[in-house]
Amino acid sequence: MSHELYRPIELSFEGDTVIPADRTPLWVRFTHESAGEHVLPGFWDGERTYRVRFAPEETGTWTWRSESAEDPALAGVEGTFDVVAGGEHGPVRVANRFHFAHADGTPFRPVGTTAYNWLHQDEPLFSETVDAVADAGFNKLRFMVFPQAGGYIEHTPELFPFERTDGKWDVTRPVIPFFRRLDAAVEALGRRGVQADVLIFNAYDRGYFGLNELTEDEDDVYLRYLVARLAAHPHVWWSLCNEFDQLQRPARRWDRAGHRLAELDPHAHLRSIHNWVELYDNNQPWVTHASIQNGSATTEFGRANLYRDVYGKPVVLDEIKYEGDIPERWGRLTARQLVDQFWIATVSGCYASHGESFVTKSGSLHMVEGGPLRGESPARLRFLRGILEDLVVPGLDPIDKWDDPAHAAGVSRRQYVQYLGASAPRTWAFRLPVGVPGERPEPGDVFEVDVIDTWNMTVTRVDRRFTLTEVLRKDAYDRDCAPLELPHGEAIALRITRVED
Amino acid sequence: MSHELYRPIELSFEGDTVIPADRTPLWVRFTHESAGEHVLPGFWDGERTYRVRFAPEETGTWTWRSESAEDPALAGVEGTFDVVAGGEHGPVRVANRFHFAHADGTPFRPVGTTAYNWLHQDEPLFSETVDAVADAGFNKLRFMVFPQAGGYIEHTPELFPFERTDGKWDVTRPVIPFFRRLDAAVEALGRRGVQADVLIFNAYDRGYFGLNELTEDEDDVYLRYLVARLAAHPHVWWSLCNEFDQLQRPARRWDRAGHRLAELDPHAHLRSIHNWVELYDNNQPWVTHASIQNGSATTEFGRANLYRDVYGKPVVLDEIKYEGDIPERWGRLTARQLVDQFWIATVSGCYASHGESFVTKSGSLHMVEGGPLRGESPARLRFLRGILEDLVVPGLDPIDKWDDPAHAAGVSRRQYVQYLGASAPRTWAFRLPVGVPGERPEPGDVFEVDVIDTWNMTVTRVDRRFTLTEVLRKDAYDRDCAPLELPHGEAIALRITRVED
Repeated sequence: MSHELYRPIELSFEGDTVIPADRTPLWVRFTHESAGEHVLPGFWDGERTYRVRFAPEETGTWTWRSESAEDPALAGVEGTFDVVAGGEHGPVRVANRFHFAHADGTPFRPVGTTAYNWLHQDEPLFSETVDAVADAGFNKLRFMVFPQAGGYIEHTPELFPFERTDGKWDVTRPVIPFFRRLDAAVEALGRRGVQADVLIFNAYDRGYFGLNELTEDEDDVYLRYLVARLAAHPHVWWSLCNEFDQLQRPARRWDRAGHRLAELDPHAHLRSIHNWVELYDNNQPWVTHASIQNGSATTEFGRANLYRDVYGKPVVLDEIKYEGDIPERWGRLTARQLVDQFWIATVSGCYASHGESFVTKSGSLHMVEGGPLRGESPARLRFLRGILEDLVVPGLDPIDKWDDPAHAAGVSRRQYVQYLGASAPRTWAFRLPVGVPGERPEPGDVFEVDVIDTWNMTVTRVDRRFTLTEVLRKDAYDRDCAPLELPHGEAIALRITRVED
Repeated sequence: MSHELYRPIELSFEGDTVIPADRTPLWVRFTHESAGEHVLPGFWDGERTYRVRFAPEETGTWTWRSESAEDPALAGVEGTFDVVAGGEHGPVRVANRFHFAHADGTPFRPVGTTAYNWLHQDEPLFSETVDAVADAGFNKLRFMVFPQAGGYIEHTPELFPFERTDGKWDVTRPVIPFFRRLDAAVEALGRRGVQADVLIFNAYDRGYFGLNELTEDEDDVYLRYLVARLAAHPHVWWSLCNEFDQLQRPARRWDRAGHRLAELDPHAHLRSIHNWVELYDNNQPWVTHASIQNGSATTEFGRANLYRDVYGKPVVLDEIKYEGDIPERWGRLTARQLVDQFWIATVSGCYASHGESFVTKSGSLHMVEGGPLRGESPARLRFLRGILEDLVVPGLDPIDKWDDPAHAAGVSRRQYVQYLGASAPRTWAFRLPVGVPGERPEPGDVFEVDVIDTWNMTVTRVDRRFTLTEVLRKDAYDRDCAPLELPHGEAIALRITRVED
């Protein structure tokens, strides 16, 4: 029996009893000659069925054997399987300090969107959303496990994650149809090439459903169950909470939950937490990348890149406000504004997320419930994603990070992207910023330039090459070439690629 | 015998032996009825003399008794003294999360300057610098304990901190004249009302003097000696290093040194560390305030305030480049630029430091060796300091921190300062940003406005009052008043103070 590398393998077990979810029903020890040993927890999946899911990251022969402190029927089962390389690239992880790549090294450039309460919607809305997100070209979706309550929410879900005992949520009794639906949701995204950015806790309940009132111990039972169930999916990202600071909890509780998440997940998925007005301490080791709400950080150059410096990790600006037309200022960006902000984020060496806040038929918003996308930004963001995927460098890092007003980013002497803002000047004279010593371009270096119209979605190769004639301490020039004429007033970026011998 | 509150009391002891500085020669236990017990280490001060310095922070009767594990002659000495309130306000500490105040609650508004290698200069330059700094109105001076080597440094000091044994620095044998000079330097600053921002380690040695080559254990001996000697001075601030990341050391070594500093200092002075191109993790608990080099964070609105969010502590932009005329871009700001950057830092809710990089007679720079100040910025910064000291609020906090383009800062419904940038428009219509719920101004609130010309150093009270007629979700207006005429093109700030009944 042979399995594809990075794909989840599911082992099923029948026990003699029903074991409450606050106890780990069984463990399976997976062993591989060079990858060593991985011990994975199982989870209850209804009746007397238990499952263990594992996504191997090494080809070759794996053997496994189950153990259980709860039920002898679950222990001592064993087997073996072969793993071969396939088309899957594996989980996305941090690469080159500020960027992302799949486990096999393939770069991943997040251009994601948001539908917080998508999981809890009925058909056909539920499936339409997956299609809309994937067809639009987004490669990540942020959504919440727990249902949302509050403004723009007109929906009480059919399923809740836990049974109730004595009028209280009983986290030891997960509702299996709820979690099967969650499995199916994650799988549906995966089939369409969309990373599932799973928001684990929910700051918008405010006592409406009461899922915000779980104790820290109850949260932990849920966290263990969720991770045991979902972590083998290669395209899962974890986010502890959206706008965590809307929940009145001590920072230490979040710290412990984040640390616990890192400890629990044998598949080492990306982990973050997203802020409202108080930033989380993203310097903590459990945080793999900073997930930040601050739209204004992407409205001007020279802001978002500061977050890179302070965290030394990838920065994803998840929520830079939304394309839409509602009265609240967080929900009334024009498409041009949002696309401009994405490009500023990009050349700041960061990533951003999309969301749409036009009011839907039900009176809700797309970024709450999903559905077809109506905005003009998604097509431009798909275009941006293409530009990112065409990069010949691992990522865009600001070259002269604090002082260069033009904010060209890239890798010195290889490839640069410069964004000239929402309204390009008439001309541009060839100039490169010069970074740290050891990465200086040299006189004679030859470059090709592509003019990228970020709104009209065109890439035009300039029909001449540029050769550096002068390299100063902080700038390098081709003094022999006349300035380049640009589509004046359009939102233009330049891609500058060294022609190698 | 009565002592003044917050002033150092020095106790002297004669021992029978010379105890190397890697051992604590004695401890003195100071006891007070309500302030409890403080145990302070002594330090060797040459020959067989040992001293203990302590600055009490409680009035009333203190008793003390010495202990020593090293020399019986130093143990069992005891005494008593009375402490009465005087004119001293005590050490500066963090207040109102993002600001500073003395131990007695008096706000402290840092407007400091820099002369890294000042301590190592001969007379009369040494004393001239103190006069120049104090006369110019600066209230903090950043300087290094270890001598500087490298660019713009034309000076080998007369004294070094340690004796040499077998051709190596011997940290167990401090050079007493060196440390007496350091005492005298700190005292000289104190007499002139200048806080001593002591840079403990030195990233600019590069093997020239070899003080960068001490082991971590040797650093620790020095740190203990330095803190035992200096910490009783009320006006000491600690900075572990200027441009710490110029020294090739693992981050963990700095973490341990910072943690150790916090543990060693019974007087709980402010503690920071200053970066070159890699930011330190200022979220660590030992860091009391972020001391950040990044000049460009103060050249536009909306940048420096991001550091407040990520650290949740006071932010001092120590090194926003220098007023001067050298070729390097860090040393050629005009006075107008530097003053503009101070005002942007101020309304971003941060603080900044001055420095001057005109070449001195010796071929060095003022920010290296000190001496008379020649720039045009100090007078304007003294004026800024006056504006800060006249505030009726604990500090300036951005009101609508991410979205307000005008960046008015202050305390809602009490006092606001808005900076209109280096070139004011012709008119300004009365408008206040509105912050978080619970701090909203109300229709009918009455305000006075002062027009502050930050370059020409004038404050002009507008001869009418403004009454809010309309309070929206994010803005409040006086729609009945015609726009205010401004000194067009000047660098203008507005101080908006509510008139209370």
